[in-house]
Amino acid sequence: MPKPKKVVLAYSGGLDTSIILRWLQEEYGCEVVTFTADLGQGEELEPARRKAEAMGAKAVYVEDLREEFVCDFVFPMFRANAVYEGLYLLGTSIARPLISKRLVEIAAAEGADAIAHGATGKGNDQVRFELAAYALDPDIKVVAPWREWDLTSRTRLIDFAEKHQIPIAKDKRGEAPFSVDANLLHTSSEGKALEDPAREAEAHVFQRTVAPEDAPDRPEYVEIGFERGDAASVDGEALSPAALLARLNELGGRNGIGRLDLVEGRFVGMKSRGIYETPGGTVLLAAHRGIEQITLDRGEAHLKDELMPRYAELIYNGFWFSPEREMLQAAIDRSQRHVTGTVRLKLYKGSADVVGRWSDASLYSEAHVTFEDDAGAYDQKDAQGFIQLNALRLKLLAARARRLGSN
Amino acid sequence: MPKPKKVVLAYSGGLDTSIILRWLQEEYGCEVVTFTADLGQGEELEPARRKAEAMGAKAVYVEDLREEFVCDFVFPMFRANAVYEGLYLLGTSIARPLISKRLVEIAAAEGADAIAHGATGKGNDQVRFELAAYALDPDIKVVAPWREWDLTSRTRLIDFAEKHQIPIAKDKRGEAPFSVDANLLHTSSEGKALEDPAREAEAHVFQRTVAPEDAPDRPEYVEIGFERGDAASVDGEALSPAALLARLNELGGRNGIGRLDLVEGRFVGMKSRGIYETPGGTVLLAAHRGIEQITLDRGEAHLKDELMPRYAELIYNGFWFSPEREMLQAAIDRSQRHVTGTVRLKLYKGSADVVGRWSDASLYSEAHVTFEDDAGAYDQKDAQGFIQLNALRLKLLAARARRLGSN
Amino acid sequence: MPKPKKVVLAYSGGLDTSIILRWLQEEYGCEVVTFTADLGQGEELEPARRKAEAMGAKAVYVEDLREEFVCDFVFPMFRANAVYEGLYLLGTSIARPLISKRLVEIAAAEGADAIAHGATGKGNDQVRFELAAYALDPDIKVVAPWREWDLTSRTRLIDFAEKHQIPIAKDKRGEAPFSVDANLLHTSSEGKALEDPAREAEAHVFQRTVAPEDAPDRPEYVEIGFERGDAASVDGEALSPAALLARLNELGGRNGIGRLDLVEGRFVGMKSRGIYETPGGTVLLAAHRGIEQITLDRGEAHLKDELMPRYAELIYNGFWFSPEREMLQAAIDRSQRHVTGTVRLKLYKGSADVVGRWSDASLYSEAHVTFEDDAGAYDQKDAQGFIQLNALRLKLLAARARRLGSN
Amino acid sequence: MPKPKKVVLAYSGGLDTSIILRWLQEEYGCEVVTFTADLGQGEELEPARRKAEAMGAKAVYVEDLREEFVCDFVFPMFRANAVYEGLYLLGTSIARPLISKRLVEIAAAEGADAIAHGATGKGNDQVRFELAAYALDPDIKVVAPWREWDLTSRTRLIDFAEKHQIPIAKDKRGEAPFSVDANLLHTSSEGKALEDPAREAEAHVFQRTVAPEDAPDRPEYVEIGFERGDAASVDGEALSPAALLARLNELGGRNGIGRLDLVEGRFVGMKSRGIYETPGGTVLLAAHRGIEQITLDRGEAHLKDELMPRYAELIYNGFWFSPEREMLQAAIDRSQRHVTGTVRLKLYKGSADVVGRWSDASLYSEAHVTFEDDAGAYDQKDAQGFIQLNALRLKLLAARARRLGSN
Repeated sequence: MPKPKKVVLAYSGGLDTSIILRWLQEEYGCEVVTFTADLGQGEELEPARRKAEAMGAKAVYVEDLREEFVCDFVFPMFRANAVYEGLYLLGTSIARPLISKRLVEIAAAEGADAIAHGATGKGNDQVRFELAAYALDPDIKVVAPWREWDLTSRTRLIDFAEKHQIPIAKDKRGEAPFSVDANLLHTSSEGKALEDPAREAEAHVFQRTVAPEDAPDRPEYVEIGFERGDAASVDGEALSPAALLARLNELGGRNGIGRLDLVEGRFVGMKSRGIYETPGGTVLLAAHRGIEQITLDRGEAHLKDELMPRYAELIYNGFWFSPEREMLQAAIDRSQRHVTGTVRLKLYKGSADVVGRWSDASLYSEAHVTFEDDAGAYDQKDAQGFIQLNALRLKLLAARARRLGSN
Repeated sequence: MPKPKKVVLAYSGGLDTSIILRWLQEEYGCEVVTFTADLGQGEELEPARRKAEAMGAKAVYVEDLREEFVCDFVFPMFRANAVYEGLYLLGTSIARPLISKRLVEIAAAEGADAIAHGATGKGNDQVRFELAAYALDPDIKVVAPWREWDLTSRTRLIDFAEKHQIPIAKDKRGEAPFSVDANLLHTSSEGKALEDPAREAEAHVFQRTVAPEDAPDRPEYVEIGFERGDAASVDGEALSPAALLARLNELGGRNGIGRLDLVEGRFVGMKSRGIYETPGGTVLLAAHRGIEQITLDRGEAHLKDELMPRYAELIYNGFWFSPEREMLQAAIDRSQRHVTGTVRLKLYKGSADVVGRWSDASLYSEAHVTFEDDAGAYDQKDAQGFIQLNALRLKLLAARARRLGSN
Repeated sequence: MPKPKKVVLAYSGGLDTSIILRWLQEEYGCEVVTFTADLGQGEELEPARRKAEAMGAKAVYVEDLREEFVCDFVFPMFRANAVYEGLYLLGTSIARPLISKRLVEIAAAEGADAIAHGATGKGNDQVRFELAAYALDPDIKVVAPWREWDLTSRTRLIDFAEKHQIPIAKDKRGEAPFSVDANLLHTSSEGKALEDPAREAEAHVFQRTVAPEDAPDRPEYVEIGFERGDAASVDGEALSPAALLARLNELGGRNGIGRLDLVEGRFVGMKSRGIYETPGGTVLLAAHRGIEQITLDRGEAHLKDELMPRYAELIYNGFWFSPEREMLQAAIDRSQRHVTGTVRLKLYKGSADVVGRWSDASLYSEAHVTFEDDAGAYDQKDAQGFIQLNALRLKLLAARARRLGSN
Repeated sequence: MPKPKKVVLAYSGGLDTSIILRWLQEEYGCEVVTFTADLGQGEELEPARRKAEAMGAKAVYVEDLREEFVCDFVFPMFRANAVYEGLYLLGTSIARPLISKRLVEIAAAEGADAIAHGATGKGNDQVRFELAAYALDPDIKVVAPWREWDLTSRTRLIDFAEKHQIPIAKDKRGEAPFSVDANLLHTSSEGKALEDPAREAEAHVFQRTVAPEDAPDRPEYVEIGFERGDAASVDGEALSPAALLARLNELGGRNGIGRLDLVEGRFVGMKSRGIYETPGGTVLLAAHRGIEQITLDRGEAHLKDELMPRYAELIYNGFWFSPEREMLQAAIDRSQRHVTGTVRLKLYKGSADVVGRWSDASLYSEAHVTFEDDAGAYDQKDAQGFIQLNALRLKLLAARARRLGSN
C-alpha cells in the first residue's frame, strides 16, 4: 500500500488514539483529520476536539450521532430480535458500521485517501470497520496502526507519548485492568482481568447497571408502545429513538437488567470472553417479542426466528453493508407492518418479563381459543382431517418399517 | 371409522378421563385398558389405579416413566437448546410422544385396536398424541372423545358423571379457573381466567415457583457438570437424569426462576396464551449454553442455532417421531461429543446467570486471545489478508454502484 | 356450513365443471356465476361462455389473464429460481392463486357468498384454491363438489350428465387415460396410465414438446435479455411477459426441452407421479441463473439458494398469499436490482445450456481473476492471512483432538 | 514462519510441480518428499515417480486412491445431492481434502514439518488444501510457492527450469491456453482463453465428453442400483465405487452428458468462469434424486434440500474436515437408510433423464394416489379439515386486514 496522504482518524480523545494521531503524522508525514462521534458512550466530546486541535489535526469533526445510531442501526436490528450465539445483543457490532460510514463520508468531503482506526489485529472491530469502509468506498485505504507499528507494549506506548508530548492522564500510565467499549446500546468489558472464563467477573467491572442485589426491592412496571416494529413511547410518552433508548437504559440499569457473561466465537477464529451490559436493549428485546406475539402471524414469526441467527452473524462479522444483510432486512421489515401496540413489562432485580400486551392489530382471537362456547368460530371436527393428512406420510413410513422389519 | 373393540386410554384418574373411561364403555361397548404414567407431575398414582379398577378397566397400567422421560426425550431436546418462538421450553410438547409410545406398545401387548386421549379439538396435544401414535403404528385407531361427544358443557359432563356413578371431587363441580398440565419439566396453565393476554396472571396461577419477590435475598450458586451434552451432576454429585432435573427444579423453583407468560401460535392455527413454569429447565438451558460456549466450535454452534427453530417447531407440532426430527437430532448429537465440563451459575430472584465455566475439552485459548504478548500464537498481520479477501466482493459491489451511479 | 346462495364457479367449459355447474344448481338451489380464464392453456374460451349461458349461469365471466399471470406470478417466482424437490417448476401451483383471486373478486362484485372449484379431495389443487381464497376473504365459503357428492365413478357422472341434458363430447364418455392441466407455463399429466412410477411415460403423453429425438439436428441459439430480474427480450426484441413466455415455449418445445418425469411429495401426504412439460420455463430458469452468475454477489446468490426450497414449498403447498411468502419475496426482489443483462443459450435436443452472458452490471472482473499480470488488483499474499484466520478454529479443534486423544 | 526442514509435496510430475520441487530444495535447503496420487485423472504415474527420484526426492509416494476417493468423499457428497450455486458438482473441491489428508499422514510418517502444494494465490484450491491440512494437524506448516516466489511469469519459470536442468516438454514452453484439473469425477478448465464469460467455449476445451451433436442418434438406457444412498450396480452388475463411477463416465461421456459453463463466486471473493465436464456425476445425481423420490419421506427430502446449499458451500470453501460439515453429513446419512432400489435413465445427446424407478422400500402408494376407487385408503373428507386448519391463521390475517383497512 502506498503511503496515505491524508487520513481521517476515528478519534476518541483518549491516550491510544492520540498516540495514533501523532504516529500517523510521524510515520507517513500525512495530514490527519479527526472524527469523534457521540454514540451515547457518555463522555464529553469537547476535550477531544481541543486535544485534536492542539495536536495539529487538519480538521476536526465532532458529531452527535445518537439519533441516527438508534434509528438507522439499532432499531432495524431489534426488528429482527437479533442475538448472537443465543445471548449477545450486538451492542459493539452495530455501532461500527455507522462510524465507518461517517469516516468514509468525511474522507470524501476532505479529499482524504485513507481512514484509520484504533482496533487491534485480534478482534472483530477491525473487520467491522474495514468491511464497512470498503463496502462504501472500494478505493479507500485503511490504516490500522495496531497491526503495523512496533508499539506493542504499554511501556513503548508511554515512551512514544512522552517523546511526543502527548499528555498522559495519571490513571492511564499503567495497564487498564480490562478494556471497555460503550455506546447508547451497551457497555462491553473484556481482556486481562476477565480472561479466565471460569472466574466470575468482579463487581467493579459493571458500569451502567446496578447489581440485581442492589436493585429496588419492589418491581417496577413499564409500558412500551410500538409503531410498525419500532418502540415509540414509554408509559405513554412519545420519545425519539435515542431518547427512548436512554430512558430504557435508566429503567433497566437501576433494576439490574441486561448483564451478560459470555464466551463467544470471534470472526477471526478464536474464542473470547466478554462482560456485557445492555439494560435498555434487554428490556426492548423482551418487549418487541411481546408485541410480536400478538401481531405477527405464526408463519412470519417462525421464518424470522429461522433467519435471525444468520442475520445476527452478519452483523457480528461486520457485514452490515452487504447485500445479503439488506435482503434479510427487507424480509424482516416486511413483517413489521402491523407490529404496533403496547407491551407491559415487570422489571425486577435483573429480570424484564412481559406480563401483558394489547394491540388494535392483534391476531389473538379469544373467540377461537376460548374453552367456552365459541359460537362456531372453530369446528373441532376439522382437527380430525388435519391430523389425518399430517399423519399420512408418517403412516406410510410406519407401514414401510413394518414391511421391511426395520425402521 | 368402525367402532373400536378394545381401547387403551391415557388415564389420569381425574374426573375428565374417568368420564371418558365410562363413555368409551357406553358408547362403543368396548373394553378399556387404562394407562397412567408418572412423568413427574407430582400426583399420587395409586388412586388412579384403584379408580380404574373400580370402573371396570380390563387392565390397568401404572408406570413410573420419569427416567425414560428425561433421558430419552428431555435431554436430547436440551442438546438442541430448543425454544419455541424464542421463549417456550416445550414442557408439554415433549411429554406427549412418550405417552403415545407407551399407549401403542400397550395396545400391541393387549391386543387393543385403539387408543384414546383426553385432549380437546382445539389444542396441540391431540395432534402430538395422534401423530406420534400413527408414526409408531400405522393401523392404530385413535379415539378423541372431546371431538366426538356431545358433553360440551360442564353441566353435561357433571350430569353424565352423576348418571354413571363417577365420583366427583367437591372442587371439580364447578369450572376450574384455568387448565393445568404438569410433568417433571414444567407446569403450564392456560384458558379461562388467563385468556386475556393484556392482563397479568395472578399469583395463585403459579404452582411450582415462588414469586421472585418471595425468593431468598441472597444469591445461590450451583455448579452443573455435563457429559457429552447431558447434565450429569449438581455441585459435584452425580445424579440420574430424573433426579438431576428434580434437583434443578428445587433450586430454580425456590429462586423464582422459569416463569413465562407467552402468547404462542398453535399448530392448529390460532394463538393462545399460556403461563409456564420451567424452573429446572430454565437453569439447565442456561447451563448448557454456558458449557457449549467453551466446548463447541463456532461452526457447530452457529449451525445449531440455525437449525434450532425448525427442531423446536417439529417438537411443538408433534413430529417427534418423524424422520426429519431424527435427521436434525443426528446432526445435533454429533456436535455434543465434547460438550463435557462444568458450569457455575448464580441463581437469584428469577434469574439464572452463567458466571463461570471450565472444561478439559475447552476450545477457549487464553494464549490466542490475550491482550498480553501471545508468544506468536497469533499473527496480527494475518488479519490484513483476512479482511482484504472478505472485502473483495464488497469492493466489487461498491465499484459497480459507483460505475452505474446507483446502489 | 349453511347452503350457499350464490356461487362463483371456476368453469372450464368441459364436462366435469359443467356437471358441477348443474349439481350446484340442483343441490343447493343456488345461483351460479361462471368464471373462465385464459391462462394460456390453449383452448377456445367462447364455447365455455356459450355453454355456461345455456346452462343458466347467472353471470358469465371470461377473461384473458395471461399477462397478469406471467407478470405477477410466474416472473416473481422465477426471480427465486424456484424448483420443488429439486426439479419441478411449479407450473400448476403458481396458476391457482390467480384463479382464486379472481373468484373472490368476482364473488365480491356479484354479491356471491361462495366459490366452487373442480379439484378432487386427494390433490394439492384444492388446498391451493382454498388457502388463497381464505387469505383474500376470510368469510368466503368454498364448495368442493368432489369432496361432497356421490358421483364417484365415471358411470355415475355420465348418468348425471345425461339426466340433466349436459352435452357429452364423444371422447369424454370413457375414462381419460390420464389427467391434464395446462397453462402458459406448463402442461402436467398424471394419474391412471401414469400411476406406475417404474414405467416410462409413453410418447402420446407429451403435448407441447417434441421428443428430443425428433428435435432439429442442429442447435438453435437464443439470447434473452433481462431487466431487474425479469426476462424482457428475446434475440433483441422486447416482448411483453406473456408474449415472451410464449416465444420461449415455441423455442423450447421444438427443441424437446423441459420434459420431466417426477415422483413428488404432495402436501396432503402421499406421493404422486407427474409428467411435466415446461419448455419455456426451463429455458427461462437456465437463463436467469446465467444472468445472476455475473450480476449477483456471492452473498446474495447463496442466501437465495438457501431460501429457495422453502419458497418453492410455500408455493407448492398453496401459501402464495401468505406473509412468509411475501417476506421471502421481499428478500428475493431486493436482490434483483442489478440482474440486468443478456444471456446466450444453446438449445439442442432437450438441453438448454448457457454458453455466454454479459451485462453492464457485471461483477465479474477479468482484472482480478486473470492468470496474467493483474496490475495489483489482487495481492496473492492476502490469501495467507485469509487462510490462517479461517483455519484458526480448525487448528484449535485439531489441537483439542490431539490433547484428548479423540476426535 | 521458520524455514521448513522437510516438506511433503503434492507432486504431479508436470513442469510446475517439478519446478516447485527444485525451488523448495534451493530456497529452503530442505528435504522434499513427493506424493503423487491416482484420483482417476487419467495420467500415468510412473513417470512422476522416476522424475521425482531423478530430482533427488528424499522419498517418493505414488498411490492409487481412486476407491477411497469415491467411497469416502464422492459418495457421501452425492448423498446430499450437492451442487454449488445451483449447477456445479464440486469435482475439484471434493478431491482436495483427500490429497491433504495423505500429505499430512505422510508428513507424520516421514517426520516432515511441512507440506507444499502448487495452487496459486488467487484460487480456491490453496484454501481447500490448507484448511484440510490444518484441520488434521494444527502444527503443520504449509508452503505455497505461488504466493511466495518471484517466478511470476512464464519466462521466469522456464528460465528457472532451464537453469536447474528440469526437463521441459515441448508443449509446455509456451503458455497453456487454459488450465485443467481432472480426477475421476470431473475435468475442469479455466483461465486465459476462457476468461471472457460472454464467449462460448470452443470445442477443443472439452476433454472427456463428446459434443451432444456428436453423440449417438439413439438413446441409451441404463439402470443404476442403489444401496442405502450409494450407487452399487449398473445394469445389474455390482461394481466397486470407483469402477462404477468410471462406468458412468463412459456412459455419460459418449452421450455428451455433463458439460457445464459456469461463472461462480470464489471463496477468495472474485468471480471466475469455469468449463466443467462431469459425465458420470451428472448421471449419478439424476439417478440419486430419482431413487430418493420414492424412498425418502417428504419431510426428509425437503430438509435435505434446505441444508444442501450450505453443505455444498462448505465443501466448495474447503471445510470438508469441519465439525459443521460432519453435522450435516450425520443428518444426511441418517436419511439414506432406505435409499435402496433401482433407477432407469435415458441418456441422449446431453441429457440424463429418469424415466422409471422402483424399490422394495418405496413410499409411493398407488393405493392412496389412485384416481380409481382406493378402497378406503384415503378419506377425501379429511382434506376439508386439513385445509380449514391450515387456513385458520390466513383467515385471521385477512380479518385483520379488513378490520384495519390495510393489508
